[in-house]
Amino acid sequence: MNHETVYHEELPSVTGWIRNKLTNPKERIRSYFLSLFPFITWIYRYNLVWFSNDIIAGLTVAAVVIPQGMAYAGLAKLAPQFGLYSSFVGVIIYWFFATSKDITIGPVAVMSILTGTIVDDIHKLYPEYDYHVIASALAVVVGCAVCALGMFRLGFVVNFIPLPALAAFTTGSALNIIVGQVPVLMGNNKSFDTRQSPFLVFINFWKNIRFCNYNAILGLSALVLLYSIRLFCTYAIRRYPRREKLFFFLNTLRTVFIILIYLFISWLINRHDPTHPHTAILGTIPQGFQNMAVPTIDRTMLSELVTYLPSAIIVLVIEHIAIAKAFGRINNYAIDPNQELIAIGVTNVLGSFFGAYPATGSFSRTAIKSKAGVRTPLAGVITGIVIVLAIYVLTPVFFWISQASLAAVIIHAIGDLIIGPKTLKQFWRVNPLEFLIFWIGILVTVFSNIENGIYVCILTSLLLLLYRFGNAEGKFLGQIQFVSEREKRNVYISMNHSDGTNPMIDPVEMNDGIFIYRIYEDFLYPNAANYMEKLVEEVFRKTKSGKSFLYKNLGEQPWNLQTSRHPQRQHQLLDPRPHLHAIILDFTGISHVDITSLQHLVDIRQQLDNYTNSKVNWHFVGIANPWIKRALLAHGFGSSNDINQTFAMANANSILVPILDTSYPLFHVDVDEAYQTALVDLAKRQNIDSSALTVS
Amino acid sequence: MNHETVYHEELPSVTGWIRNKLTNPKERIRSYFLSLFPFITWIYRYNLVWFSNDIIAGLTVAAVVIPQGMAYAGLAKLAPQFGLYSSFVGVIIYWFFATSKDITIGPVAVMSILTGTIVDDIHKLYPEYDYHVIASALAVVVGCAVCALGMFRLGFVVNFIPLPALAAFTTGSALNIIVGQVPVLMGNNKSFDTRQSPFLVFINFWKNIRFCNYNAILGLSALVLLYSIRLFCTYAIRRYPRREKLFFFLNTLRTVFIILIYLFISWLINRHDPTHPHTAILGTIPQGFQNMAVPTIDRTMLSELVTYLPSAIIVLVIEHIAIAKAFGRINNYAIDPNQELIAIGVTNVLGSFFGAYPATGSFSRTAIKSKAGVRTPLAGVITGIVIVLAIYVLTPVFFWISQASLAAVIIHAIGDLIIGPKTLKQFWRVNPLEFLIFWIGILVTVFSNIENGIYVCILTSLLLLLYRFGNAEGKFLGQIQFVSEREKRNVYISMNHSDGTNPMIDPVEMNDGIFIYRIYEDFLYPNAANYMEKLVEEVFRKTKSGKSFLYKNLGEQPWNLQTSRHPQRQHQLLDPRPHLHAIILDFTGISHVDITSLQHLVDIRQQLDNYTNSKVNWHFVGIANPWIKRALLAHGFGSSNDINQTFAMANANSILVPILDTSYPLFHVDVDEAYQTALVDLAKRQNIDSSALTVS
Repeated sequence: MNHETVYHEELPSVTGWIRNKLTNPKERIRSYFLSLFPFITWIYRYNLVWFSNDIIAGLTVAAVVIPQGMAYAGLAKLAPQFGLYSSFVGVIIYWFFATSKDITIGPVAVMSILTGTIVDDIHKLYPEYDYHVIASALAVVVGCAVCALGMFRLGFVVNFIPLPALAAFTTGSALNIIVGQVPVLMGNNKSFDTRQSPFLVFINFWKNIRFCNYNAILGLSALVLLYSIRLFCTYAIRRYPRREKLFFFLNTLRTVFIILIYLFISWLINRHDPTHPHTAILGTIPQGFQNMAVPTIDRTMLSELVTYLPSAIIVLVIEHIAIAKAFGRINNYAIDPNQELIAIGVTNVLGSFFGAYPATGSFSRTAIKSKAGVRTPLAGVITGIVIVLAIYVLTPVFFWISQASLAAVIIHAIGDLIIGPKTLKQFWRVNPLEFLIFWIGILVTVFSNIENGIYVCILTSLLLLLYRFGNAEGKFLGQIQFVSEREKRNVYISMNHSDGTNPMIDPVEMNDGIFIYRIYEDFLYPNAANYMEKLVEEVFRKTKSGKSFLYKNLGEQPWNLQTSRHPQRQHQLLDPRPHLHAIILDFTGISHVDITSLQHLVDIRQQLDNYTNSKVNWHFVGIANPWIKRALLAHGFGSSNDINQTFAMANANSILVPILDTSYPLFHVDVDEAYQTALVDLAKRQNIDSSALTVS
Repeated sequence: MNHETVYHEELPSVTGWIRNKLTNPKERIRSYFLSLFPFITWIYRYNLVWFSNDIIAGLTVAAVVIPQGMAYAGLAKLAPQFGLYSSFVGVIIYWFFATSKDITIGPVAVMSILTGTIVDDIHKLYPEYDYHVIASALAVVVGCAVCALGMFRLGFVVNFIPLPALAAFTTGSALNIIVGQVPVLMGNNKSFDTRQSPFLVFINFWKNIRFCNYNAILGLSALVLLYSIRLFCTYAIRRYPRREKLFFFLNTLRTVFIILIYLFISWLINRHDPTHPHTAILGTIPQGFQNMAVPTIDRTMLSELVTYLPSAIIVLVIEHIAIAKAFGRINNYAIDPNQELIAIGVTNVLGSFFGAYPATGSFSRTAIKSKAGVRTPLAGVITGIVIVLAIYVLTPVFFWISQASLAAVIIHAIGDLIIGPKTLKQFWRVNPLEFLIFWIGILVTVFSNIENGIYVCILTSLLLLLYRFGNAEGKFLGQIQFVSEREKRNVYISMNHSDGTNPMIDPVEMNDGIFIYRIYEDFLYPNAANYMEKLVEEVFRKTKSGKSFLYKNLGEQPWNLQTSRHPQRQHQLLDPRPHLHAIILDFTGISHVDITSLQHLVDIRQQLDNYTNSKVNWHFVGIANPWIKRALLAHGFGSSNDINQTFAMANANSILVPILDTSYPLFHVDVDEAYQTALVDLAKRQNIDSSALTVS
């Protein structure tokens, strides 16, 4: 076996980094533009098998989206046809840009109600803009913003919306929507203003309960029927698993059945006097795309919309990405979040020309499409064709649709968005603080509005993150001997057993002045001071200073040491604590350092050198990347006067070679190596000290 | 040796945590209130030795602060006496609350110039408020805010101001101040508006250079003298180290000498016609505290001041805390940042009653006090007494002070705040991105204003922090054999040598379907998705699915797999990759998980179980605290059907006991243990598989 005793690592430089980023620009640009149109990668393989599956899925979704679209348009304070326009555009454009076969873009409940509040707010200030004009303008603005996010590959910001925020906001919105729809279902919605804050609507609903009318019979029975069909089908699927497909379609089409049944009933009741109907009906829906136009966006509109932009973007994006990822996992494909952002963006911008309002991925319809066996994103086109037919042919029939049954459809669909007690309990068990954030979000959403709910949730989560980050704590490790059938070796566990290790095992306090300190999370400006203060505190507690502080009288004492008024020399001399010898920083979990944290290290090194009256060795363990090394070396860490050999060798084709760069003997592979090195050095120093003593 | 084979760890509960926080409330409250008045801990030990040292330090500081205070008041757009009031209050109150003996509170350059811009802005809008009234109101408001931060123990927010931000803001402010003072020094400040943006002042200075007058002679010569004395003293201290004390005091008092010399010159020039002076003089300064009053704070004032509050708080706090910590380290004591905040807060609030404007810890005077050998915070009182004497006795003399010499004093003092090229180079080597942030901060400070400079620096740093956090990456580890003289053992290094390990050593790719994945930083909502996506990608690349995908024709192929148009069965069958067996997550560097990250884990577990068509074992290594365990257990991690024994044992008083809770065989002490466990389990499974094969 030979020794290859030298290894030099090349440290990174900024120019090298930039050069690396600029390699092969043509290829990079080409693949970027290809990624914008993913349909190129599969359209040439399209075949009849795929088509037959897509057609079933496309038709199923169409049957669901037509009633849902018309219902959700109401939440956005728009006439039903705008829901149809949005549904059409959503499905017809998306497949060009899609990286998910399951996603179905179109009007969704939460985005609709948010659009409703925005449209309402702006219309109050500028009555010259029609509701649908504002809604379309919103679609353009938010579409452009989302598209830009995707183009610049900023999709990762979506990750800054945590799950509890998402849950609070969907649950809160669902409660808002239900509270708003119950009066429509019960028929007393004309008796008071249903556009107020949800809790006011709730109070007023009960105050005006006597104004409920025939609609209540239609609505309540429709709701009961919807739940009954679902319950029956779920039961039937379990009972007759062979007929799963049949019951699935039955279940999926329950909305259409209910709408049609109640359309018929509503027609029976009201056919003689459609101008004064006994139960609320949908009314005239214009045939065809009556609102195709270049969307109106002037400066006033833009400046008004901008303030609502963040919440609109958040709602548009989180639901879509969350759904896309979930179904990607279920059906074994990976979506590209940035490309999905571009897809929603383009869809919304183009949609506005058809009179559409903001649309995004719908959870319920995506699930239906996935289960109906969709094979490619092209299924959307089938759905689109059916919707166009509906817009041109079926509008006279839609006239008779019962408003109460639409309300039932909304409430039924929305009910699933409310978080269940089981999930809540898990929230609590995983993280009580986030559980609290969830409830704050719900309260703000219900008592203020959805927008504020989102903001509060995201901000409190971010504050919690920063608080945790700023208050990160290091741990002092101690050596124990790990024993198994195969071997004995040293492992290092927290000295105070805060890591849940068996308190019967005592990491022996070595009294050798060597400290092993593990840094958790990062070592950056918010927490560097904390880490270093804790370290110094512990060092001061466990070691004695290299200079002897013998206070002969009160005047020599420093002001800040709470010693007695009669200083005793003995107390100082008999101090059994060791001198500080070395500090081992475990950087295993760290991937960045910065100027501030390095400055703290330097300051503390200075302080401790003063304290011991000699040079303390700083060992570093598990440095994850050469940038950290570069930073440490810039401040003179890594090398040492006493230690000039690395311990760590490894086999490479039966030659022993050093694992790490041999110029930096204070950078180590693992804690054990660092500790052994420090011990050897300590022994050497003590020998010198004792021989020096012998000589003198 | 006996085996104690069972160990159960108690998991934490929220009620337990709260109960723990509420133990011994009396003691907690008592120590909280004691911590508010730290002088109690040392005042009873006060003695003559301390006093003699304090008196020297106190007098030295007084000699420096009197000219500085008057000069800095000009930066705050106030008459010189307000600088004296602020100096007096700063030193006289602080010692009650001080946890640092060295800190000297009083007017400082950067806070003064910030006060100047704020006062100017508000005075323009509401001319009915005098300058000094606004300045005092600012002192009250900002004092209350800072005091509240300290009371609620929120001092840690100071850590969110990184060093490059601090450097950019002090350097930028220094440039601003110097650009503003040069016209005063040269005497052409009356020819144009010096309150504009620094770069405009700079341009106008050169445009109006012809208006320079006699003041230029005084100012420039004073500046040259100041630097010469300092240069000489620094040289002399090195040359005659025995006389260090003498030269230190000479150096320290150079400001006073210069002011006095030029006061005399100014008197000689102007004594005959003080109403039309040839060179600018300070003018009448009222004797005594003429502006003692309850500060005026009405609603208008408050609403105006609130917008400036963040920047004022930041400037007030960061300088003070940074200085206090630095001198604590030098003189070996620890400050309490929260208590320091209370100290500045109270000082400013009370100061406003004397007519003071916002004051904070001064770097230069703190350094002087420390070097002059101060022993206790009480030295401030000595300084205070001298200032009072000056206010009552010396004001007639101050009349003749040369404005140009004051400008020289300011420029001379401020020059040291500009960062040097050596530090800049180190910034670059430690972190090129932060180097960029530094320059952005400088540019914004110089071309816009100090406030914006601070905000931009802090926000860009925070964005960088969040970007890093959101884009954190995990690493796949591989086993290598560590060889030293003493032993052979396994260590785990990054598979791709991105940790700088010797590329000659190859962590053998085991082809056993076991992945070791180390998570860096935290595993929280911003980065959980990232970590998991990378993991799944690698798993899909390195293993084959448990279900066999044999596509007989094009129609069976999924849309997203870019396979050929003529699927080949062979290609699928001969896949040499292993099945996924286990995933080892190295949590060593992690101290928190949250609901979102746990949900990601659960989703990925589901996805991978589907992929392999069996249950994948998830091993966890180095869990730092029981809360993480609680969260993992809530989602069913930690236990396994196959593995029911832990490997990790350790000696405790010569009994072998398990290191970790024996109910969770998938939580491990270190990576090696986890990997061995996974290997043993793999062998067991393969045995079962092969025996099953034999039977069938």
